[in-house]
Amino acid sequence: MANSKYEYVKQFESQDKCLPNCWIVVRIDGRNFHKFSDEHNFEKPNDEGCLRLMNSCAEYVMTEFRDIIIAYGDSDEYSFVFRRNTTQFSRRASKLMTNIVSQFASCFVFNWSKFFRGKELKYPPAFDCRVVLYPTNQNLRDYLSWRQADCHINNLYNTCFWMLVQRDNCTTKEAEERLRGTFSSDKNELLFSKFDINYNDIPPLFRKGSVLFWQKVEEKIVKQCRSKESDVVETREITRQRNIVITQHVDIIGDEFWKLHPEILGDS
Amino acid sequence: MANSKYEYVKQFESQDKCLPNCWIVVRIDGRNFHKFSDEHNFEKPNDEGCLRLMNSCAEYVMTEFRDIIIAYGDSDEYSFVFRRNTTQFSRRASKLMTNIVSQFASCFVFNWSKFFRGKELKYPPAFDCRVVLYPTNQNLRDYLSWRQADCHINNLYNTCFWMLVQRDNCTTKEAEERLRGTFSSDKNELLFSKFDINYNDIPPLFRKGSVLFWQKVEEKIVKQCRSKESDVVETREITRQRNIVITQHVDIIGDEFWKLHPEILGDS
Amino acid sequence: MANSKYEYVKQFESQDKCLPNCWIVVRIDGRNFHKFSDEHNFEKPNDEGCLRLMNSCAEYVMTEFRDIIIAYGDSDEYSFVFRRNTTQFSRRASKLMTNIVSQFASCFVFNWSKFFRGKELKYPPAFDCRVVLYPTNQNLRDYLSWRQADCHINNLYNTCFWMLVQRDNCTTKEAEERLRGTFSSDKNELLFSKFDINYNDIPPLFRKGSVLFWQKVEEKIVKQCRSKESDVVETREITRQRNIVITQHVDIIGDEFWKLHPEILGDS
Amino acid sequence: MANSKYEYVKQFESQDKCLPNCWIVVRIDGRNFHKFSDEHNFEKPNDEGCLRLMNSCAEYVMTEFRDIIIAYGDSDEYSFVFRRNTTQFSRRASKLMTNIVSQFASCFVFNWSKFFRGKELKYPPAFDCRVVLYPTNQNLRDYLSWRQADCHINNLYNTCFWMLVQRDNCTTKEAEERLRGTFSSDKNELLFSKFDINYNDIPPLFRKGSVLFWQKVEEKIVKQCRSKESDVVETREITRQRNIVITQHVDIIGDEFWKLHPEILGDS
Repeated sequence: MANSKYEYVKQFESQDKCLPNCWIVVRIDGRNFHKFSDEHNFEKPNDEGCLRLMNSCAEYVMTEFRDIIIAYGDSDEYSFVFRRNTTQFSRRASKLMTNIVSQFASCFVFNWSKFFRGKELKYPPAFDCRVVLYPTNQNLRDYLSWRQADCHINNLYNTCFWMLVQRDNCTTKEAEERLRGTFSSDKNELLFSKFDINYNDIPPLFRKGSVLFWQKVEEKIVKQCRSKESDVVETREITRQRNIVITQHVDIIGDEFWKLHPEILGDS
Repeated sequence: MANSKYEYVKQFESQDKCLPNCWIVVRIDGRNFHKFSDEHNFEKPNDEGCLRLMNSCAEYVMTEFRDIIIAYGDSDEYSFVFRRNTTQFSRRASKLMTNIVSQFASCFVFNWSKFFRGKELKYPPAFDCRVVLYPTNQNLRDYLSWRQADCHINNLYNTCFWMLVQRDNCTTKEAEERLRGTFSSDKNELLFSKFDINYNDIPPLFRKGSVLFWQKVEEKIVKQCRSKESDVVETREITRQRNIVITQHVDIIGDEFWKLHPEILGDS
Repeated sequence: MANSKYEYVKQFESQDKCLPNCWIVVRIDGRNFHKFSDEHNFEKPNDEGCLRLMNSCAEYVMTEFRDIIIAYGDSDEYSFVFRRNTTQFSRRASKLMTNIVSQFASCFVFNWSKFFRGKELKYPPAFDCRVVLYPTNQNLRDYLSWRQADCHINNLYNTCFWMLVQRDNCTTKEAEERLRGTFSSDKNELLFSKFDINYNDIPPLFRKGSVLFWQKVEEKIVKQCRSKESDVVETREITRQRNIVITQHVDIIGDEFWKLHPEILGDS
Repeated sequence: MANSKYEYVKQFESQDKCLPNCWIVVRIDGRNFHKFSDEHNFEKPNDEGCLRLMNSCAEYVMTEFRDIIIAYGDSDEYSFVFRRNTTQFSRRASKLMTNIVSQFASCFVFNWSKFFRGKELKYPPAFDCRVVLYPTNQNLRDYLSWRQADCHINNLYNTCFWMLVQRDNCTTKEAEERLRGTFSSDKNELLFSKFDINYNDIPPLFRKGSVLFWQKVEEKIVKQCRSKESDVVETREITRQRNIVITQHVDIIGDEFWKLHPEILGDS
């Protein structure tokens, strides 16, 4: 059976190479995670187990796709940044996004039980994903600042909202109305005066989200070698450099983080 | 903290709406599945468990994205066809492919144990995915014919190859050389004369791949109602129409399948 | 001087092939033609010279790009339809639109004096242009109907508007207000009762726009040959088939035109 | 006649916005200019009239589209660079390229007679055009260097080639063979020893191409005002700043040009 007469259909595929010399951001978002978190009784406003599960998936993605130089995640979303001159998948946008989103999703199910002992995963979740290009370092930093500022805004709001609901017995509608039009300062004040919560004491995992990046570490390996001639066992200590993924919950809006890790953005 | 000064970065996102009135094909391929099948000791040339797992994922995807009117899968790949006028995700290509590929991947891990009792999943697999548009019914049928013809060609080759290796003790290199340049008829003859195998007796799951589509079925539901006034329990039989996903292993290259199911392509 | 170290910049060019098996429509619009027609004292509501100049440019474009199977124009716009399987410029959208729009524009200046004897062209006009794909014959016909219906609507309005201004001494503002909210029937009635104009008697060039397509014609060529041996001059009449571009001002919304010229859409 | 039932066809148009914060290069190339220059008996290797005509068109384009900050041209091609944050045509690629290419083409015909007195333009030429994006200043400078290096390489070759043909009576084939495999130094030597030509004495218009950019100039305008009260005529000299397009034939590969004109690339 000749397949050749059908092969013309391959010409309908289109190219989607990312512009060279741009930062490639691949952002994942959970599909219908509102429903997903209800069905799995996630803690409000933040479920630490789910956030740590998300982080474990992001770490796995980074070790599989080593041209990702930094990742940032909070809530049900994660952004992966490929170095600006990556040639992974020939920079084809659809390859980049589908490999990463499917790896993340399969990992989410695979690792579920490690973070939710005893809690059953009721159904397999989906994620959507997009590719966005940023031409300059400033654009990329602004992108990451946008996501971290968003994390802060949402978390401050949600912390207030759920305090009102959980501790003040507000209905969700009442809590919504109570918070409408308030500024950050109002919300901080509300938390402090009403619930005795200093917002800055809330774990940075919730307030700052998670930043993953590569770090060189030195590993000491102890090797035992039996020499061929004699029967003497020699013990040698070998020092090896290795790149590992580090997870931090720190500010990436200001300059400090970037000064500490100049290798991430490079010089370009 | 004002997020507005960073929000300009959203403008870097690009539109990728699929041309209206075209069939949208979303095709998934396993990433590095050669290694994956080795690591999990899959049976050669076909591992029925893995094929049935793939089918279960495809069925789940179809029930989640109900504008998929037909799906075809074989080996480690699956094609999903959205009806030509779908408005799912506003026809945005990246939304379509990432939701589907991540749903498929998470489902693959979720359902693994149902098809591989006792066999551990060693790591979570990734899939890549693309979107291809076809303007006419003929183009779409040619696409599906292309995939099914490909399934046939590969399966015939692989059946011969693994017979030579498993039963004839050939090395993989010898088997490769033995098959180089042979036609379909030669391979059929080889299977028959040397291994007493009539190729057409091989299960259609392997030879034809799997075709999934919707079918209306009538369900009879028996309902017991206790009337409010009296205490009498009434039994009523209700007939309800429902759409379910059917899985078949049949030829979709010829006209017969399409004449039996004219609703799939419609009139357009 | 080695140029090779700069050549990497070519990789920043992107592909933009049109989806195969779709009708390719290339539509041109005059840039700032309101100002252009004022500066050149064009007759209102239609300047026949300019329309005929536009038609001459379209005809030139068709003879240069022979895969254009039909063109439709009115006012300061023109649509060119490439046959659905054209391979002109490998179907690259930017090549298609820029070659056509620049050919049209240069021709507009080149032919100006033929249609405007004695009237000086004050400055060279620009045009913008886009490519739109249509998957089915019905979509293409609807596109052309959209443009011709638009021609009708605008021409009926403009005819009324300029009658009010030119014959009834309305200001443009008064004419605008007079026509606000009127239906086609009202406008027809206005023309008839007030200005004694039967709209259907207006030249079809204005009412229907212009349709250009290819037609086979037989040409008789008279050839005189002097035989080598004798000095006798022989006269031979040769009949030759040739494709020429025909311009008509007819309805293309109904079926009649398409039944008369089935070769335009073909069978696909 | 309701047009609304056809208007759905507008949805088939696609978006093609250029990535923000990138340099937008719009490059024009003459279509079939080999034939065009033969038909118009252009001087070889360079026709000064045609080059000056091209420059006049480029200048016209720049004054019409004032976000073009620099243009570079040689032979039958021209590159226009829009400032990286231009919002002209909402950065839509097809709008940008078609307006510019059609403006250039219509201008070419419009200005022809100013540069070719007495020589008839035989037919209107077409140009093709593309849009390319460059994320960084270095990428943009490399692009411009690429074009100017190309100009140099071609011009040196063509100068030798036509000397061999015109002065040494070589056939074109012989000239081609004579130059095959030669380096720049060989060609310089050939020109000097055989034709007594110092390549650097050739006009920079031919060797360097043309660079167009904006320059602020001070204009002195003498205004005569008659005062209303008395009949005295006062003469005032007003100094006004104006931006005009400057054309130079200078090196833009090295740093000197860019240091002299830092405003072109700005700080971004």
